[in-house]
Amino acid sequence: MILTGELLIGASAVPPTTGTMKALNPATGEVIDPEFAFGGPVEVDRAIRLADEAFDSYSHTSLEERASFLELIADKIEAVSEELAARASLETGLPAAQLEGEAVRTAAVFRKFATVVRQGRFLQAAIDPAQPDRQPTPRMDHRLQKVALGPVVIFGSSNFPISYSVAGGDTASALAAGCPVVLKAHNAHPGTSEIQGRIIQAAVAEAGLHEGVFSLIRGAGNEIGETLVDHPLVRAVTFTGSEGGGMALYRRGQQRHDPIPVFTEMTSVNPNFVLPAALAARSAEIGSGLVQRAMYNVGQACLKPAILIAIDGPGFQEARDTLAAEVERADARTMLTPGIHDSYYHNVQRMEDGGATRVSAGSAATHAWDGQSLLYEVTGEQLLTDPELREEVFGPFILLVKLTGPDQLLEVARAFRGQLTAILHADPADRATAEQLLPILERRTGRIVFNAYSMPQETSYATTHGGPFPATSDSRFTSVGMGAIERFLRPVTYQNFPDEYLPQTLREANPLKLWRLRDGELTQQ
Amino acid sequence: MILTGELLIGASAVPPTTGTMKALNPATGEVIDPEFAFGGPVEVDRAIRLADEAFDSYSHTSLEERASFLELIADKIEAVSEELAARASLETGLPAAQLEGEAVRTAAVFRKFATVVRQGRFLQAAIDPAQPDRQPTPRMDHRLQKVALGPVVIFGSSNFPISYSVAGGDTASALAAGCPVVLKAHNAHPGTSEIQGRIIQAAVAEAGLHEGVFSLIRGAGNEIGETLVDHPLVRAVTFTGSEGGGMALYRRGQQRHDPIPVFTEMTSVNPNFVLPAALAARSAEIGSGLVQRAMYNVGQACLKPAILIAIDGPGFQEARDTLAAEVERADARTMLTPGIHDSYYHNVQRMEDGGATRVSAGSAATHAWDGQSLLYEVTGEQLLTDPELREEVFGPFILLVKLTGPDQLLEVARAFRGQLTAILHADPADRATAEQLLPILERRTGRIVFNAYSMPQETSYATTHGGPFPATSDSRFTSVGMGAIERFLRPVTYQNFPDEYLPQTLREANPLKLWRLRDGELTQQ
Repeated sequence: MILTGELLIGASAVPPTTGTMKALNPATGEVIDPEFAFGGPVEVDRAIRLADEAFDSYSHTSLEERASFLELIADKIEAVSEELAARASLETGLPAAQLEGEAVRTAAVFRKFATVVRQGRFLQAAIDPAQPDRQPTPRMDHRLQKVALGPVVIFGSSNFPISYSVAGGDTASALAAGCPVVLKAHNAHPGTSEIQGRIIQAAVAEAGLHEGVFSLIRGAGNEIGETLVDHPLVRAVTFTGSEGGGMALYRRGQQRHDPIPVFTEMTSVNPNFVLPAALAARSAEIGSGLVQRAMYNVGQACLKPAILIAIDGPGFQEARDTLAAEVERADARTMLTPGIHDSYYHNVQRMEDGGATRVSAGSAATHAWDGQSLLYEVTGEQLLTDPELREEVFGPFILLVKLTGPDQLLEVARAFRGQLTAILHADPADRATAEQLLPILERRTGRIVFNAYSMPQETSYATTHGGPFPATSDSRFTSVGMGAIERFLRPVTYQNFPDEYLPQTLREANPLKLWRLRDGELTQQ
Repeated sequence: MILTGELLIGASAVPPTTGTMKALNPATGEVIDPEFAFGGPVEVDRAIRLADEAFDSYSHTSLEERASFLELIADKIEAVSEELAARASLETGLPAAQLEGEAVRTAAVFRKFATVVRQGRFLQAAIDPAQPDRQPTPRMDHRLQKVALGPVVIFGSSNFPISYSVAGGDTASALAAGCPVVLKAHNAHPGTSEIQGRIIQAAVAEAGLHEGVFSLIRGAGNEIGETLVDHPLVRAVTFTGSEGGGMALYRRGQQRHDPIPVFTEMTSVNPNFVLPAALAARSAEIGSGLVQRAMYNVGQACLKPAILIAIDGPGFQEARDTLAAEVERADARTMLTPGIHDSYYHNVQRMEDGGATRVSAGSAATHAWDGQSLLYEVTGEQLLTDPELREEVFGPFILLVKLTGPDQLLEVARAFRGQLTAILHADPADRATAEQLLPILERRTGRIVFNAYSMPQETSYATTHGGPFPATSDSRFTSVGMGAIERFLRPVTYQNFPDEYLPQTLREANPLKLWRLRDGELTQQ
């Protein structure tokens, strides 16, 4: 694919109006062609108006049409996965093989959402038939299904340039819901974004959909994001990134005259709690597994298990030694952007200022934006006293926490803010403590992992990638997994409707054989 | 029941700390005993801390325990329904017979939520079993269910002193979800609130639950509400009332360091669109039905069909005559509070200032806080030009809108902000216009009613009582119907868990025979 650097607004490719940028290869410092266009309020307005115009027809496509469209995108992602991975590798410094795997998994996510659409359970169709003879008052026929919210703005994230970017899970779930998407591309990988954007643009045309179903916008600074969130026709926003960036957009969305849902997935240290019997039995395995998982993507991952918490006792020293040795063996690797690199060392300094002490370090940086792998440690007392020590260091940094006993373990667990995940390492002899700990973790996380490190992210029906603030801005939703579609849907009831006026999905004959709730009972009748 | 006027904080009855008030009989102007306590930040903190302490045990009650608790409350509401209605009638000026019906329906709502809890579908249990041999990467076992959010603050509303108040649908759905409730009683009916509060307090004790599962707080002015929304341990808020009040609480909840869901149901005019053939054939029936429904509860209802919109032509004059005659026949009746009465006439004046002209009026007020039934009219052009004319007049006020033709009808439909409901009156000959109108209405409402007026509110699986802003603050939820429980739930995934550590609801053997999604297929296995 020849990259032109244009914005993609509906079916058009649009040249720059407010400046341009070039991509940076963070591994070499080289600037890469071509020039990429920046747009401003005019392009934002045009893209969102088109999305609004597309809404009525796109949100009323049949389940089959919409599923086929998602599969078409999946085909196209697979067709360019090698090219996509190569460009993404240039723009992020991440290995091409890893990125190709990411592209293949992303295509699979579009296929899974096609299945979700065909199954039609996301409609949550419910029928309460008329009861004309009910006493004391008759009941009218009521039929409910979920409908699409409207045009959605999606901010591509920096760290997974495919699966959380232009053709990522947010886009797949919004399109599955029936919402047109205006995508704000992340400036860290503009070429990778353009390839994905052009694929979707082509799929829209090939499927014969209204061109406004998808647009790709790029702009400088925070202004473009603010303009997008402020636009009166936008009905929802999603974002994956830092707490600062996420909360700025969240608050902006809430300050509108008409607040809109802004789902932001922000920060998580995914604490590991190692209980005594597990520590005594498996300290080396737990330690090396943690380092391997934590260093994935150069530690630039929302699910990075960043903190290992254990009580001083049998196995502790061995766990510490393993962590130290594994971190020492780790090479320094290119971070995603100069900004993320600088922020990494800034946060390491913050941890040092907070009293964390260095245990070991991987090989030193050999290029400007390399991130060195680091292991620090603190006591439970320190972690409890200084909230900063419980916060994320985005990059290849691990914190070991040494506790005095089980009481401090529970106290430490209670001290954390909301998390995407927590990991519990427990052997059968740990059961009593585990059962005290689990409700504390359940209250603070969207997912609890038992004796395992989770990689890659599973995208399925039972996936939760969410959690209490600040893991996300609304713990009632997930941004990964089939449930992600719920962010973009709202219920509508059709009361006393003649059958021929009802959407096909709610008609009495149930022509699509959907699962529906009929008088409170699930049935395919 | 002897009313003491105390606050109910957990199992305690608490005397006033920041002043007292007495109830007012709006029909007579009489002040009614006893004195009712006001609390302040100390009582708020105590109630919410208790709710937080109760959370772990209450949210982990078995489905059967929780369902039985809800049924116990239902029994107790039924047992006092006569007393409750009598006191509510004194405090609101509404007819006791109507209020007794409200009490009976409210008890039924608790029973329906007991069924929802036992059915367990609200858990949305999903199981993706392990696939150790999957290529290229194995899959770990993932199991998901919804869990309760945490302590919930519920603001009782003024207009339905039972069904939207202390023991109303918000409380029923929050308790069903597993959330302890701190109820801010509306000062318009303190005795009615106390009766309901004491019932729930007694049910908590009788069921052997933690006392913090329910508290009832009362306070002066806006401060008590702000203190409640600001409390760090509160996890969600619901409110039914004015747009001004609702948005103040909403914005307060979003300005917290950690924003929380604040579901506010606020304002709706529930426009009626009468298409030409229906108007020609059934103008008198449509007109008189509208007046009857609109005047229910002295027009103080969120579902009041406040605006009738029709094209000038056959039947229009007859519809106008019917409306005028029916309104003229309507007695002036006591409004809920002096404040609501004053605001009614203020809003009528606002409509006059906006150019609405009076068509007819019911009998004149004979008591200080009587509301006179009123019919006004405007043209489509006026309605399109002045957004104020499209806004709610809370009380027995109806607006008739005369349009020039079908194009103006669609234009008027597009001009409305979000609504709880829209009512479409259409005969077979109207089908073409109806099909143009329906997508416009679907986008702006939570419910579309076909050729009917909806009364009383149906509370069931297919109910939506919600809609785009400003009908509610979040169109993705409903505050009435079985779906109301979703406001208080969030997903949690248990990954790679040994069976014995899983909640009973997710165990492999499915001991409760719940409907669960297994590998993407619904099954009771």
